[in-house]
Amino acid sequence: MPIRALIWNENRHEQSNALVRQIYPQGIHGEIAAALGEAGGIVTQTATLDEPEHGLTEERLENTDVLVWWGHTAHGEVKDEIVRRVQERVWQGMGLIALHSSHFSKIFRSLMGTPCALSWREAGEVERIWVLNGNHPIAAGLPEHFEIEHEEMYGEPFSVPEPLETLFISWFEGGEVFRSGLTYQRGAGRIFYFRPGHEAYPTYHDPIVRRVLGNAVKWACNPASAWKRVNEAPNVPHDKAPVPLEVKGPRLHADGEEGYR
Amino acid sequence: MPIRALIWNENRHEQSNALVRQIYPQGIHGEIAAALGEAGGIVTQTATLDEPEHGLTEERLENTDVLVWWGHTAHGEVKDEIVRRVQERVWQGMGLIALHSSHFSKIFRSLMGTPCALSWREAGEVERIWVLNGNHPIAAGLPEHFEIEHEEMYGEPFSVPEPLETLFISWFEGGEVFRSGLTYQRGAGRIFYFRPGHEAYPTYHDPIVRRVLGNAVKWACNPASAWKRVNEAPNVPHDKAPVPLEVKGPRLHADGEEGYR
Amino acid sequence: MPIRALIWNENRHEQSNALVRQIYPQGIHGEIAAALGEAGGIVTQTATLDEPEHGLTEERLENTDVLVWWGHTAHGEVKDEIVRRVQERVWQGMGLIALHSSHFSKIFRSLMGTPCALSWREAGEVERIWVLNGNHPIAAGLPEHFEIEHEEMYGEPFSVPEPLETLFISWFEGGEVFRSGLTYQRGAGRIFYFRPGHEAYPTYHDPIVRRVLGNAVKWACNPASAWKRVNEAPNVPHDKAPVPLEVKGPRLHADGEEGYR
Amino acid sequence: MPIRALIWNENRHEQSNALVRQIYPQGIHGEIAAALGEAGGIVTQTATLDEPEHGLTEERLENTDVLVWWGHTAHGEVKDEIVRRVQERVWQGMGLIALHSSHFSKIFRSLMGTPCALSWREAGEVERIWVLNGNHPIAAGLPEHFEIEHEEMYGEPFSVPEPLETLFISWFEGGEVFRSGLTYQRGAGRIFYFRPGHEAYPTYHDPIVRRVLGNAVKWACNPASAWKRVNEAPNVPHDKAPVPLEVKGPRLHADGEEGYR
Repeated sequence: MPIRALIWNENRHEQSNALVRQIYPQGIHGEIAAALGEAGGIVTQTATLDEPEHGLTEERLENTDVLVWWGHTAHGEVKDEIVRRVQERVWQGMGLIALHSSHFSKIFRSLMGTPCALSWREAGEVERIWVLNGNHPIAAGLPEHFEIEHEEMYGEPFSVPEPLETLFISWFEGGEVFRSGLTYQRGAGRIFYFRPGHEAYPTYHDPIVRRVLGNAVKWACNPASAWKRVNEAPNVPHDKAPVPLEVKGPRLHADGEEGYR
Repeated sequence: MPIRALIWNENRHEQSNALVRQIYPQGIHGEIAAALGEAGGIVTQTATLDEPEHGLTEERLENTDVLVWWGHTAHGEVKDEIVRRVQERVWQGMGLIALHSSHFSKIFRSLMGTPCALSWREAGEVERIWVLNGNHPIAAGLPEHFEIEHEEMYGEPFSVPEPLETLFISWFEGGEVFRSGLTYQRGAGRIFYFRPGHEAYPTYHDPIVRRVLGNAVKWACNPASAWKRVNEAPNVPHDKAPVPLEVKGPRLHADGEEGYR
Repeated sequence: MPIRALIWNENRHEQSNALVRQIYPQGIHGEIAAALGEAGGIVTQTATLDEPEHGLTEERLENTDVLVWWGHTAHGEVKDEIVRRVQERVWQGMGLIALHSSHFSKIFRSLMGTPCALSWREAGEVERIWVLNGNHPIAAGLPEHFEIEHEEMYGEPFSVPEPLETLFISWFEGGEVFRSGLTYQRGAGRIFYFRPGHEAYPTYHDPIVRRVLGNAVKWACNPASAWKRVNEAPNVPHDKAPVPLEVKGPRLHADGEEGYR
Repeated sequence: MPIRALIWNENRHEQSNALVRQIYPQGIHGEIAAALGEAGGIVTQTATLDEPEHGLTEERLENTDVLVWWGHTAHGEVKDEIVRRVQERVWQGMGLIALHSSHFSKIFRSLMGTPCALSWREAGEVERIWVLNGNHPIAAGLPEHFEIEHEEMYGEPFSVPEPLETLFISWFEGGEVFRSGLTYQRGAGRIFYFRPGHEAYPTYHDPIVRRVLGNAVKWACNPASAWKRVNEAPNVPHDKAPVPLEVKGPRLHADGEEGYR
């Protein structure tokens, strides 16, 4: 059964900027969908900010294995209610690939619990990405390092939690470094942050970058059925305990009561 | 210079329930303040939900090294604005000790990025806490394991991110287990989650529990000055780069511009 | 292509003890091989301590995707040279499942870098295993918790490094707890420690335990080709650097020289 | 009470090479001892390879809080017995600072359980070290990044386990990156790997590098008394269990017996 990827894009630069439109005539989301199509075993849909519910209805998320996210100028326009919905689905097992400027997206920040800040520069400099574990599924088919001729610089400190795995570190021509490939687990969901992808450069046309995107979607897909109760706090009554008990001492709660939240 | 601890308590059960009032006549916050006073080297203040700004003004947080948090029935009443303020201070370096039912507090959940759910039972059963690293600062002076005669049960799965260190695991009489001491780092701030402390039992009168509280506050205190820029994304112009550059390729941003958020 | 699992067993209790022989007439290795055979997609071979090179020749390890290890009384008889060979293959990408008393095997200890000690008791007590992330591949098809009627107790502190993921925690009837399912990454190799399996009880006949074994082998299999150079320290000459350099300052090494080890 | 640091140095280049002798007339160990002396609160001793027992007697290690290690050409000459002795003391709580080429030392490799390999080049290039958490004790007083004018290059992949914290990442003029400050916990002992320090350059005369050394020794010092039983596997008899038990089912071990190793 193919993996169901949903590519979400803010889709604003493509409307407002001729240069971006020229690089990505189908939108960044369209180009990423094409890249994932080439990877094999992935079926794609796309969604954008200006669609109703940002294209992220309950039903659509239910039918998504991995969500790919690209946002930049309009993080603040994404409704909190939709962010909570996406977050809940990640906890239940949906994978999330956060790309480039999505480090500041509400969804990524809410899953990290940290500022996710960094330093940056738009000077078209060379980015060289070093692969720390070439045998990781996300690195399948990659060389030991690869270069992107023109990229925006992101520099450390990148204020994120220590990851599960540091997969990529970038070297920038101007002298900075950045952890550009990081994995996380949040509830049943796997998360991959991947740095490259400034909208002013044709990064998502790069065959190695496209390879990473396909690998990442495959890695982030959790075939288990959704962990629907991940956000619940069930009461286990004393007589239904694994080792049944008599109640001792005083009590505040009545039997079978819901916990406070 | 002594560590400045601020103990925050919802302080609702103490008003509404005679049993809790009898166990904690000074409030849970008062009892914890007394415990920290015994630890030496810590000066304490307290704050409660019903004070203006929940007692958590900018100025007060500025002058707090470690915040201790106890909440249960009224997590939803804590204002989002205050939660963001506390979160920002943790990122800057303030320590946070989240106690017992605070697993579901807005502040703890927002720093973890996960549901922080668990199963539970109020049956006054025995909790036996095993110490995984007796040489950790938080375990200073503790025995290899210790018991609390009556406690509320919390059971796994506890949906939190994999911690920096798993320090304590609890065994419950009714058959469950729980990771009851976990450390995290978020930005410059250290976080410790400590499970015991159901309001219907005199847990915070227990000398070993009091010892853990004092140790945890000392561990969580970051003597460095606040990381004020932890949430900023500074632009580094091409001519101020560590290796100065000429701009290459196209650009979207003008020099010195703020990044999008 | 099926996963090639090799089950290594010390195979001593089966020779010396009638009880163990009765529980495992084909040896523990034979029973585990049968369990893996049921999982589907896995082909198995077995090897034992008393075979030449302990059954772990270079060629055999080359053709193994995942090694399953059970040892107890004769850890000291495993030759250091063979341990180094196995360790090197794990670094290159072979998975390793360390079972029960293998916590003290040379191979597990050498990969952890810690004592891997614990407390223990052989009293036939109940072990209840709690699953912390039911959506992890190793937990596929498991209930929220499961019991083994008679098991040896292992108690914390278990002196291992903080794992990648804590998957299982055991509750013992006698009052102890233990992290009974832990994942690690060492080089390109994935490692899973799984606690149950005392030779005096029919643990590996338990259908849930068998399920874990099959899941773990599938999880630990790294489909990438071996990372042959994982143990090499290549010199990158100044004129072959990604950014070619002139040599500056003094030097100790001549061009193209091997590094010291 | 001051921290007792012991600086161990191979001390071979200082004998064989006039350049190194000129840079470090007191030996690398002597220079590091001087640096630690400036940090305040640290008393130092030194030990070298050619002393009896490499200067690392049981008694001396007993009286050491933090061991600093520098080795390069003679890793293989360090006796396995001494390595095991040092490893045991780290497990018990002694801190370890592994410097530069000590990535390939027996003691560091044995504590990591991985190859600890990397790529390298001796071309006197610039190393720029980025600080990922300026509020970490090891980074106290450091700027956001600092440069070493001439250093040996070490490049990723550095085959070590995922650390507790990634503190520093280096940018090299020739195009590589390296995780140059990593923290680990092994048993009760804290470990810090710090990259800079090629013997052909005056790196340990650099005031910022000296500052890191002092900070690291203070961070790695564990004030708790030694965890003497970290390597033991105590039996807990059924009648001495936290919850006393009757023995059920069959048994292989007699009461009070030592476990197998």
